[in-house]
Amino acid sequence: MRVNGVAYRTVWMDGGAVKLIDQRLLPFRFKVVSLRTHQETAEAIRAMTVRGAGAIGVAAGYAMAQAARHAPARAFDRAMAEAAELLRGTRPTARNLFYSVERVLAGLPVGAPVAARRARAAAIAQAIADEDAARGRRIGALGQQLFRRGRSRVMTHCNAGWLAFADWGSALAPVYEAHHRGKRVSVWVMETRPRGQGARLTAWELGQEGVPYTVLADTAAGHVMRQGLVDFVIVGADRIAANGDVANKIGTYALAVLARAHRIPFYVAAPTTTIDLACPTGAEIPIEERGPDEVLRVSGPADDGRLAHVRVAADGAAARNWAFDVTPAAYLTGLLTERGLVAPGPRTIRALMRAPGRARPGAVRRALVHA
Amino acid sequence: MRVNGVAYRTVWMDGGAVKLIDQRLLPFRFKVVSLRTHQETAEAIRAMTVRGAGAIGVAAGYAMAQAARHAPARAFDRAMAEAAELLRGTRPTARNLFYSVERVLAGLPVGAPVAARRARAAAIAQAIADEDAARGRRIGALGQQLFRRGRSRVMTHCNAGWLAFADWGSALAPVYEAHHRGKRVSVWVMETRPRGQGARLTAWELGQEGVPYTVLADTAAGHVMRQGLVDFVIVGADRIAANGDVANKIGTYALAVLARAHRIPFYVAAPTTTIDLACPTGAEIPIEERGPDEVLRVSGPADDGRLAHVRVAADGAAARNWAFDVTPAAYLTGLLTERGLVAPGPRTIRALMRAPGRARPGAVRRALVHA
Repeated sequence: MRVNGVAYRTVWMDGGAVKLIDQRLLPFRFKVVSLRTHQETAEAIRAMTVRGAGAIGVAAGYAMAQAARHAPARAFDRAMAEAAELLRGTRPTARNLFYSVERVLAGLPVGAPVAARRARAAAIAQAIADEDAARGRRIGALGQQLFRRGRSRVMTHCNAGWLAFADWGSALAPVYEAHHRGKRVSVWVMETRPRGQGARLTAWELGQEGVPYTVLADTAAGHVMRQGLVDFVIVGADRIAANGDVANKIGTYALAVLARAHRIPFYVAAPTTTIDLACPTGAEIPIEERGPDEVLRVSGPADDGRLAHVRVAADGAAARNWAFDVTPAAYLTGLLTERGLVAPGPRTIRALMRAPGRARPGAVRRALVHA
Repeated sequence: MRVNGVAYRTVWMDGGAVKLIDQRLLPFRFKVVSLRTHQETAEAIRAMTVRGAGAIGVAAGYAMAQAARHAPARAFDRAMAEAAELLRGTRPTARNLFYSVERVLAGLPVGAPVAARRARAAAIAQAIADEDAARGRRIGALGQQLFRRGRSRVMTHCNAGWLAFADWGSALAPVYEAHHRGKRVSVWVMETRPRGQGARLTAWELGQEGVPYTVLADTAAGHVMRQGLVDFVIVGADRIAANGDVANKIGTYALAVLARAHRIPFYVAAPTTTIDLACPTGAEIPIEERGPDEVLRVSGPADDGRLAHVRVAADGAAARNWAFDVTPAAYLTGLLTERGLVAPGPRTIRALMRAPGRARPGAVRRALVHA
């Protein structure tokens, strides 16, 4: 997607360096950081310099390629296992990170010369990135059918746009595609406290692409739904269990409950790489709890333009800070993937995860009836 | 209640001056402002130097007393009508403001000397304040029965504590009373964006009284309810319609929907002065919409201790900022007033508004069954 008119990906490889847009500074500063080792890339994932399920997965794949590049020939396998361990320990919830690490490890040709294994790791990492962008584009092409010819007012939470992936995104890909096709789309952007990815990242992305949007405090979701101002909700996912339960940014579950109470369709958009068949239900998805400071302090540019951290709670206040919640599959009107739109459940999830050729377009169309 | 061990009211009269705790600076600075005229007091209400339904009502009563003090003898009635008009235009939603203005106007003895009318206005204003504090204390005494002998974990939104009234508060009065009686109470304090009255004011109040609490981002309400960590929700109200619909701080409605989805009792605590029989339903309650800046910018002390305003959204972002929402009566487990706890509806609201002697204690006890 574009930044000031120039096409970018969120994460890419340049020689041996992983380059990525520093999302901690966005939207206040646009800066690309360059990471020379897999340890630096792992730290960027942990510190949320890069965030979003897909982008984390792409960065993890590239980090594995970096690890292969520097792994000594005589201890190659052990070095790769250690790199995998380091990366798996950065963020616990997003499925895509584990998918990328496992895919690079599994793809290394056993017994081949180290140079061949390094080249293979780099090729797999690049394929992960390219496939991620292609999946986003496909989700957009399918999902734009959810938008009417007339005006559609959709609500989204957190950032499941192109910044959360290599490109395009999941929840926002259909928004971009519908907008590019000339449909009249406007977006209610939920602020998404504590880190404010909606007000910061989603608002910035939509602004760069010229899509009309309005930021709301998270407290306003119920009111705008009750006023009849939301046609449907579309959000991303960090991990989807085998039964269709969805872990996503904290606050997603509340939007799903509110949407149901108002009979508003609620869609989750995610590539199939976010689905974790090894997780039977949402109860088995580990939910990251982060430090209280994200709740108690807020940062942004002050009147003089300098970034400042300000305290927003009483001195000495305690806080809890779960980063994700789980939305049961029953709350989803549809799960939109690059292979189609399904009503999520154990059977449809299994069908989705078979070869793409076997996805039945009929199921997609039936689930699209509201549009 | 106490501030650093010293007893305070939120608003009081000192000679001809209205004094009040500046709530825009809390919890970061404790400062009392002194307002010499009813115009200054009206501006303090508009600017939210004083906020909270009861405290606004008390300040409005005192402002009417100030107006009487300065009204010229030959145009007394017109001056009082103009003062009433000015005050009614400050904040549209809270019922208590209108109640106080009307009560002072109606209580002025027709044809009496101006000195007598001035004295009467001052006496009514003081009675409004004293009755407000007494009602809070009574709500506390009744409401503490909602708390078990064992540990109770309650959730509250915004600030319906003593800062929102002359003293004691509505939603927090039962918390204080239960705590003073030695019951083990802990409070989930919802941050309450955009102005953060939960994280700032409620957290500060509870800290001053030694009640354990934990601040949560507004997005976390659904997750903590789903984890079984909330015994009941208790919030205040800005206006209650004749059918029991409740206007309160934006985000209240979402908590009510979430509480119902999790079968968690949801209580609204308010003095009967918050009830507006002239409003048939919540649909007739005017909902104040404030400027977008409260959503897009946040203020608090920076690392150097100075108050700073920081931008928390993308440059150029649009925002909407409704200050209140309406929760239909059907979502309330109970409405707790100084006259008892009722299941709100047209009939019970009418019964409540009759003479206090006619409130039936049986209805209170039946509604308390969950405790």
